[in-house]
Amino acid sequence: RRSPATRPRYELVVGLLMDTTTIIASLVTALAACAGMLFSLRTWSRRHRSKRRNDKPVKQKDKHNASTYDMKPIGFVESCWPDRRSTPRQGSLVPSSAGLVKFDPHVHPSASLDGLQGFSHVWVVWMFHENTRARKATKQSQKKNNQMILKAKIRVPRLQGGKAGLFSTRTPHRPNPIGLTLCGIIEVNLQKSQLILSGMDMLSGTPVIDIKPYVPYTDKPVREVRVPAWIQKPAAFNEVDWQESAESQLRALAPGLKLFSSTEMARSAIEEAVMNEAVGRPAFVGMLPDHEFPEVQEKQMRKVWGLKVEHLQITYIIRAQRQTGNKETKINPQEDNCKSILVMSVERHADAIRTDRKDASAR
Amino acid sequence: RRSPATRPRYELVVGLLMDTTTIIASLVTALAACAGMLFSLRTWSRRHRSKRRNDKPVKQKDKHNASTYDMKPIGFVESCWPDRRSTPRQGSLVPSSAGLVKFDPHVHPSASLDGLQGFSHVWVVWMFHENTRARKATKQSQKKNNQMILKAKIRVPRLQGGKAGLFSTRTPHRPNPIGLTLCGIIEVNLQKSQLILSGMDMLSGTPVIDIKPYVPYTDKPVREVRVPAWIQKPAAFNEVDWQESAESQLRALAPGLKLFSSTEMARSAIEEAVMNEAVGRPAFVGMLPDHEFPEVQEKQMRKVWGLKVEHLQITYIIRAQRQTGNKETKINPQEDNCKSILVMSVERHADAIRTDRKDASAR
Repeated sequence: RRSPATRPRYELVVGLLMDTTTIIASLVTALAACAGMLFSLRTWSRRHRSKRRNDKPVKQKDKHNASTYDMKPIGFVESCWPDRRSTPRQGSLVPSSAGLVKFDPHVHPSASLDGLQGFSHVWVVWMFHENTRARKATKQSQKKNNQMILKAKIRVPRLQGGKAGLFSTRTPHRPNPIGLTLCGIIEVNLQKSQLILSGMDMLSGTPVIDIKPYVPYTDKPVREVRVPAWIQKPAAFNEVDWQESAESQLRALAPGLKLFSSTEMARSAIEEAVMNEAVGRPAFVGMLPDHEFPEVQEKQMRKVWGLKVEHLQITYIIRAQRQTGNKETKINPQEDNCKSILVMSVERHADAIRTDRKDASAR
Repeated sequence: RRSPATRPRYELVVGLLMDTTTIIASLVTALAACAGMLFSLRTWSRRHRSKRRNDKPVKQKDKHNASTYDMKPIGFVESCWPDRRSTPRQGSLVPSSAGLVKFDPHVHPSASLDGLQGFSHVWVVWMFHENTRARKATKQSQKKNNQMILKAKIRVPRLQGGKAGLFSTRTPHRPNPIGLTLCGIIEVNLQKSQLILSGMDMLSGTPVIDIKPYVPYTDKPVREVRVPAWIQKPAAFNEVDWQESAESQLRALAPGLKLFSSTEMARSAIEEAVMNEAVGRPAFVGMLPDHEFPEVQEKQMRKVWGLKVEHLQITYIIRAQRQTGNKETKINPQEDNCKSILVMSVERHADAIRTDRKDASAR
């Protein structure tokens, strides 16, 4: 056994050792804590600073050092076209189409729209917001160091397989997906902050970024206008026939339409739309049932096509030769007498019924 | 004196006490360190997440919950108008004006512009980038919870003090400062990625966000066009006289112009610009020296006005009655014989000389 005098000295040494280690440990942890807090402070101040920086300019430098401009919609379109498939390529192809621009309060519409009553036409500058391909392309392009993935050349339907540079076309797939449409003014409603327009090629929900009056002395070319041969107005059918049942369906449903004040106006828009769609890219909805027109044998002519106008689904058949190759219908005015479209039915479409039900159950 | 047995016990107690306090202290600091690191980790992950979120959509939610759209210029304008004061209100007022759009490589101009050769006119969609008032307004508006500070009503010169809603005018001071100009195509240069245009109302350096071909069947109104009385093409002088010295100065300097291939073309642009400016808002540069036209007594008619075209400063006098009230020159075709503008000199302007010197010293 050791002497009792050594015991306290031993404990003292142990105590001192423990003290120094704990002091060092606590110093280290304190340092770590300080470092952590400093780091978090730095990131916080950075975030704060960058937020403040973003507040200031409209013009911003993106990470590839090119300035970009922020556009905030001044309003949104509510048009007779509920989906992309039914929307015409150009508003001028369906002049009876109707829609309205509902303005955001931040642009003070009751004052800023005042004066448009004196004009017959406006330019609507809008965004191709349901531009899936462009959105995808932008996504990819931002990943790949901002290189444009959009195709620089576009296949032009009337060039029969030929291509043209995107800036020589009105394609939606543009570096900045801006649409430009000359619309007719039906009504300027300052109370409701609405502009009611005709000649719409905008989908419902489209963001509008500017409205400009049509001023002939600046917007009408002075020099002679020249366009390539492929830019001619696309061919369309001249007339549409209606099945009697479809006509009575339209008469019954037309009063429920928001954007057309008479059955005749709705009928004009539907006919113009169908005459155009039938030539280009109609949407297939099914085949004719066997009991309808049993004399028509050819499969192509038994196809039923669809089109949506507001909450209505219009179905029709095209009794003319369709070239399945480039998907364009061949029209021969003599042979077909240009009366080869027959409207089969006008009904509330499934989506509209579904949303109605949702609304009802929510009440 | 205490017994020796008590000493180690005392030290033991002190040691234990010290141990517990240091342990507690180190625990506290360790906790603080953990908290600090957790906090910094959270902020880091947040920044990271938000960065990833920004990568995806073109459409972004700003802090006021409205979507905004980012526009990246596809190119920039190099026009004959070096400053805002000389730039005409509309390109159609100075049809001989010239400029070019130099495209950014990211839009692959050699392919995407191909096809424009077949067109006579294009729409240029551009940004009012030197729009000081709008920029200021946006700055203020973003501070004040995104309320628009832009004036909703604009004083219209031809309404004699009257105002019109901004959307019924082509004012640069718009919620989204987008300009739209119909230009004539002079040349499509795919090698140089340039589009050479006439009828420019864009300042040099203007960012271009889209180019669209002019397509008559969509861009020409079908229905009858109606505009208010105040939207008529502004009156302009019909002819411009030149002092002989000014004419020879132009002949000497015209070959140095980049955008005009002949003296006659430059002369046309200068005359059109002067005829317009003289009616609206000419820029005052000084008074006539006493020895020039001593017979002209009226102070207004002794004022010398200036205009810049590329690197040239053109000075002229207006020998017609100017109404200082609304700053518009009254033209009386009979009385003034519409030949009341006299070009006094054509010289390299001071800014151009200064930048030349800078370039020289840099070499």
